[in-house]
Amino acid sequence: MAKANERGVTPQSEDFSAWYNEVVLRAELADRGPVRGTMVIRPYGYRIWELIQGALDARIKATGHENAYVPLFIPESHLRREAEHVEGFAPELAVVTHAGGEKLEEPLVVRPTSETVIGEMFARWISSYRDLPLLINQWANVVRWELRPRLFLRTTEFLWQEGHTAHATEEEARAETAIALGFYEEVARDLAAIPVVAGEKTASERFAGAVSTLTLEALVRDGRALQAATSHFLGTNFARAFDMTFANAEGALEYCNTTSWGLSTRMVGGVIMTHGDDRGLILPPRLAPYQVVVVPIGRDADLPPVLEAARELAAGLIALGVRVRVDDRPQLSPGFKFNEWELRGVPVRIELGPRDLAAGVVTIAERLAEGKEQRPLADAVAEMPERLTAFQAALLDRATRFRDEHTFRVDDWEGLVAATAVGFASVLHCGQLSCEQRIKEATKATPRCVPFDAPDEQGDCVACDGPSAYGRRVLFARAY
Amino acid sequence: MAKANERGVTPQSEDFSAWYNEVVLRAELADRGPVRGTMVIRPYGYRIWELIQGALDARIKATGHENAYVPLFIPESHLRREAEHVEGFAPELAVVTHAGGEKLEEPLVVRPTSETVIGEMFARWISSYRDLPLLINQWANVVRWELRPRLFLRTTEFLWQEGHTAHATEEEARAETAIALGFYEEVARDLAAIPVVAGEKTASERFAGAVSTLTLEALVRDGRALQAATSHFLGTNFARAFDMTFANAEGALEYCNTTSWGLSTRMVGGVIMTHGDDRGLILPPRLAPYQVVVVPIGRDADLPPVLEAARELAAGLIALGVRVRVDDRPQLSPGFKFNEWELRGVPVRIELGPRDLAAGVVTIAERLAEGKEQRPLADAVAEMPERLTAFQAALLDRATRFRDEHTFRVDDWEGLVAATAVGFASVLHCGQLSCEQRIKEATKATPRCVPFDAPDEQGDCVACDGPSAYGRRVLFARAY
Repeated sequence: MAKANERGVTPQSEDFSAWYNEVVLRAELADRGPVRGTMVIRPYGYRIWELIQGALDARIKATGHENAYVPLFIPESHLRREAEHVEGFAPELAVVTHAGGEKLEEPLVVRPTSETVIGEMFARWISSYRDLPLLINQWANVVRWELRPRLFLRTTEFLWQEGHTAHATEEEARAETAIALGFYEEVARDLAAIPVVAGEKTASERFAGAVSTLTLEALVRDGRALQAATSHFLGTNFARAFDMTFANAEGALEYCNTTSWGLSTRMVGGVIMTHGDDRGLILPPRLAPYQVVVVPIGRDADLPPVLEAARELAAGLIALGVRVRVDDRPQLSPGFKFNEWELRGVPVRIELGPRDLAAGVVTIAERLAEGKEQRPLADAVAEMPERLTAFQAALLDRATRFRDEHTFRVDDWEGLVAATAVGFASVLHCGQLSCEQRIKEATKATPRCVPFDAPDEQGDCVACDGPSAYGRRVLFARAY
Repeated sequence: MAKANERGVTPQSEDFSAWYNEVVLRAELADRGPVRGTMVIRPYGYRIWELIQGALDARIKATGHENAYVPLFIPESHLRREAEHVEGFAPELAVVTHAGGEKLEEPLVVRPTSETVIGEMFARWISSYRDLPLLINQWANVVRWELRPRLFLRTTEFLWQEGHTAHATEEEARAETAIALGFYEEVARDLAAIPVVAGEKTASERFAGAVSTLTLEALVRDGRALQAATSHFLGTNFARAFDMTFANAEGALEYCNTTSWGLSTRMVGGVIMTHGDDRGLILPPRLAPYQVVVVPIGRDADLPPVLEAARELAAGLIALGVRVRVDDRPQLSPGFKFNEWELRGVPVRIELGPRDLAAGVVTIAERLAEGKEQRPLADAVAEMPERLTAFQAALLDRATRFRDEHTFRVDDWEGLVAATAVGFASVLHCGQLSCEQRIKEATKATPRCVPFDAPDEQGDCVACDGPSAYGRRVLFARAY
């Protein structure tokens, strides 16, 4: 820790926001782009995104969805066809007014999301119930003008996947939104080691144009909630706006029921904020670009045999499917490398010096543990997959414990204020917008979701003593 | 063929351009987007792109390049820093002037390519020779306003990868451009079955801002050339514009030498135009979303056992790594399905009816062959990988033969005119822009490249009788 502070990472407890920005920049996850609010995702950060993509894409395809690509530009008039949708997105739009050296007859919106283009295409492609369900996904960039940008969490442009599906019935479409939320929950829990709360958004937090929005909410280390992914049941709203109909088995025309769902590069921010500590990042092995870093130690004549042994060690790990890097940069000291890889959150570091080599051992330092341990070289290799699995599980346990310790069941105003200052407040709420707003003004907290797994419960609103809505408790928190 | 014509695909010989558009739309490779010149890539076309991506990404990573992502928006002033670059791209730019409900202080260009953003970032990241080479790749969308858009070949927005690298020396940077061209040549030849000519662009056809542009040129079935991919040596042009310097081993500052190289969704258009015939697409097995389609044939009580056998057959093929689809759509006749999968270019069709099933055989139709053959069911499965390999090789042979038969070594004006009407003209040329322009006006042909494998040769220019340049022959052709 002393060494990390020498490098000047602000402690989380002192200024979480400064800690976050410093870690993102110094770990070389991302950098700021030339245009305000834009982000360059550097190779170390992009590799994390690729690992998320790979796992999510496999799940999406295994359930019958197909990837496609729709254009970046949307005619402004298209966006206006769904009234709530355009109202929700209007303040965030970037608009192309000139192209090819001329002023355009109609301005083009840079997509903030693609429901409206999909609406037009689906209307063109769907004619019969035999064309349904239509299950499409795309990996793409989207643009939403952000007034308070933050790397990964809120950037003017971000990368995501957006699923778009059309169904013959409301029941099928609602089932689809649950399937998509299931992908996201698996990715969050099993890859990112983030324990998320799955639930439904209240009306004020719904996607613009949706009938119902399902969400996953994480709780990060400064006690704020982070929306990790959402899945929307759009009813027939977009189908009506784009005349998306199908002939049913009896030949009568019906509107499709549609869904959309997305997970973005924001998830990388969630990983950083959920697991990091004052030394920097801690990466879950399943998302770590390097799961193991081998640091060879030695000078002059001692170095070549150590380097050779380090490379053999790495080859043994690669053969077991471990992502490993030998840090053989000659100009840097071992101490500098230890600090750097701690800052960059590599789960396991192996140190290998001439005395280790002579004794047939290696020194292992795990990013979650305080000390180091020595292991016979062959065992260190053979045990590594199991060690990484255990590390992954320990990280999820740690985050789950944190989340549970920062979730409070409260029934009065003082309790609400105290809970939302440090985490989730689980409360009964009247569901009135005016009451939500009063809570927000006093605590900055908003309703994050009505968790699916909350038991049936009714009573008085935590804030206004009106009768509770939703039939169960709601989670409130300050949110990113 | 008769059946295909019933479906109304215009023969290639009648109107190649109409044939192309009809095949792209009816095979459901792509559709037109709501904004003129934009394209929706449908799942069948996107899958081809994903197969290209997978192979190319593996080659890029195996050679030490790392994926990253830089922003879509470029400040207009940035683009102006490299004079030739902005001059080349200015007519094609789309410009964002308003965002977040306000007029922007500085307009933002939607990237037509990313050298200028990369320039700024590389300048920030590189300080020492130890930071070099810096080898970055990104998969992204880019926008170039097209006056004569054509699906896949020239669309207002397209998908590509763009490699960007910085090196300490010109020699290393030039070697890098050859490495990248090598990736592309392998993908073209081994996946797309497209025999390309590798060479260097003449000055008039170079990338805006490049010192040298390497290219792969394909010849498609209407006798026009198609630029399949390019790789640019940028010298120190962008390094100077963005102050991208490094301290060499002696501590002195030097400018980096940089490269950039790209392959786009245009390659999908190349596949269509290189291999298709009057019945529709012909897909090389390595890029076919479905390599084999199984069509079960039977009515009423005959159908269930046939369907079951078709699914077992498919399972056997999948176990061998074959991409297969059982076309069990109940409402469509076998004849309709045969035509559809021929139009969509599936390499191998397996027909399976009750009599086949009783005899333990299947009927196989290959997309390149005229007739059908019967094979014992188990053999049909076991032989399939080999059959697909042979199909892939046959397609490359066929395209190579076509290319060779449409490449003419000509030494006079009449020969040039005749050759460029049907294919490549291999000529001695003076290298003067005025002479290139005279050729273009008369024949619509432009210099495609100076092939690497052309022998040393000198003499009189084919058009003006001035002395030839380049030290070897140049390929001229009409081009997409």
